[in-house]
Amino acid sequence: MARVNALIATRMASEHAPRIPEVTRHLVEAGGKRLRPLLTLAAARLCGYEGEHHVRLAATVEFIHTATLLHDDVVDESSQRRGRPTANLLWDNQSSVLVGDYLFARSFQLMVETGSLRVLDILSNAAAVIAEGEVLQLSAARSLGTGQDTYLQVIRGKTAALFAAATESGAVIAGAPDSHVAALRTYGDALGIAFQLVDDLLDYGGVSATLGKNTGDDFRERKMSLPVILAVAQADPEQRAFWTRVIERGDQRDGDLEHAQTLMRRHGALEETRSRAFARADEARAALAALPASALRDTLSDLAGFVVSRVA
Amino acid sequence: MARVNALIATRMASEHAPRIPEVTRHLVEAGGKRLRPLLTLAAARLCGYEGEHHVRLAATVEFIHTATLLHDDVVDESSQRRGRPTANLLWDNQSSVLVGDYLFARSFQLMVETGSLRVLDILSNAAAVIAEGEVLQLSAARSLGTGQDTYLQVIRGKTAALFAAATESGAVIAGAPDSHVAALRTYGDALGIAFQLVDDLLDYGGVSATLGKNTGDDFRERKMSLPVILAVAQADPEQRAFWTRVIERGDQRDGDLEHAQTLMRRHGALEETRSRAFARADEARAALAALPASALRDTLSDLAGFVVSRVA
Repeated sequence: MARVNALIATRMASEHAPRIPEVTRHLVEAGGKRLRPLLTLAAARLCGYEGEHHVRLAATVEFIHTATLLHDDVVDESSQRRGRPTANLLWDNQSSVLVGDYLFARSFQLMVETGSLRVLDILSNAAAVIAEGEVLQLSAARSLGTGQDTYLQVIRGKTAALFAAATESGAVIAGAPDSHVAALRTYGDALGIAFQLVDDLLDYGGVSATLGKNTGDDFRERKMSLPVILAVAQADPEQRAFWTRVIERGDQRDGDLEHAQTLMRRHGALEETRSRAFARADEARAALAALPASALRDTLSDLAGFVVSRVA
Repeated sequence: MARVNALIATRMASEHAPRIPEVTRHLVEAGGKRLRPLLTLAAARLCGYEGEHHVRLAATVEFIHTATLLHDDVVDESSQRRGRPTANLLWDNQSSVLVGDYLFARSFQLMVETGSLRVLDILSNAAAVIAEGEVLQLSAARSLGTGQDTYLQVIRGKTAALFAAATESGAVIAGAPDSHVAALRTYGDALGIAFQLVDDLLDYGGVSATLGKNTGDDFRERKMSLPVILAVAQADPEQRAFWTRVIERGDQRDGDLEHAQTLMRRHGALEETRSRAFARADEARAALAALPASALRDTLSDLAGFVVSRVA
């Protein structure tokens, strides 16, 4: 990971536009979990890779992630990210859009350096699924008609596509057999879905529906995440009128978030979201059985448990 | 070109997010000159290419161009493009940012399909220069300290990088010898610079400094284009105070654009910009001498003349 971080620092530089490293550094140095590059490194090493390209791939994946964060914060008009003011707030939307484009181009240069067309295919497909999911989320928000299929497509774009590309491309660069590549892809996809389900559940305070400083963003942005979809599906006419008001019309008042949480608890929407997250974590762990036993395989298995432990 | 247009129409589709083809169609069907894909097709055919990949490459180049237009209009807060309201106005900034990202990802998928790592290298480098130039333009605007080197870097990013990548990648896909690849790259680069110089000159009404409906956008956006840079370089203290007020402080009043034009004419800034555009067009034509004579070579040569004919 130290070499990945060094490569990120080198490649976020710009000979001509100092604004680029300023904005990027602000986001990169705030930390973040570096989960995605870690997945790439682990997948490559687990498949016996001993070359150098996995470091490039890991940096690629983190650049794609950083670029999407910059654009997401513009789209969501966010003001906080990783405990810091967002780049769109510190600089402006323009810088966030353009620096995001630059990082996307840089990620693309890095992956071309691996010289693997198969890796390029995986990552370019992931980039398309990510962008499509973001657009889908935009048009699916604020509409009570949004169903579970659309939600799954959105979170695949938001999270699972890059997780899956991270693990799959790590296996491919290592020259792993198809069965191992497929297993690591399934692992990444299931892990990413579990991760996002947990995030969406925590946005309503987890199964205990506790209010916290990170609670309520999705509600305020009127996103159709799974807890809302499940609660709406079981709403009586009066409850449906409530959801129409707060999500479709965006007329939100004091106490509405708490009422939303109460309805979710009453209909078991939070419990159900949690149980789906656990099922995806199990799916991720099960996929690893196709790979030979090793300490790294155990680490990936533990990671699946760790991802859902936030809502245990 | 009919096959390029058909491929663009197919690939701008999205299985899940109808917003994507809506926004893209709005921009693509408004026409535009399709100059960039034409350059790719012409370069490939001029180098004797008889395969299919040049159509993909041409669509790639047009997708990259369309993606940057969507993001540019957000960054510049534009309301008109190709005689129509911009997508950011008809839909919203969010859609423009995310659909732009989608088109960028799609362009990337298309170029991976060519299976040529050398083409991927050229286009990924171009994407980085484009994004870097946009960021540079953002930080160089509104500052009288911006010089001609920075301006050249900005217009390379804005226009010449994609022109050069369009012609160079067309030659590479055709398996042309290095000297032909280099000649077509030089041609594209010089043509792109000439093209942008003409655009920047016309934004101040051309050498006659005539006001028109397309005049004054750069002035209002306080961009440091060559006519401004040249006029500032020769400004006396009173004139410098004028430029400081309108460009740096952004305090623009009725008659200021006309006064800017007068100062540019007085110092020969418009004539000088025109003569540099003509010199770049000559450079583009001269580069073609390295290629065997053919009707297509004549067409490319004529194109260089056509680009500067708008300010003849």
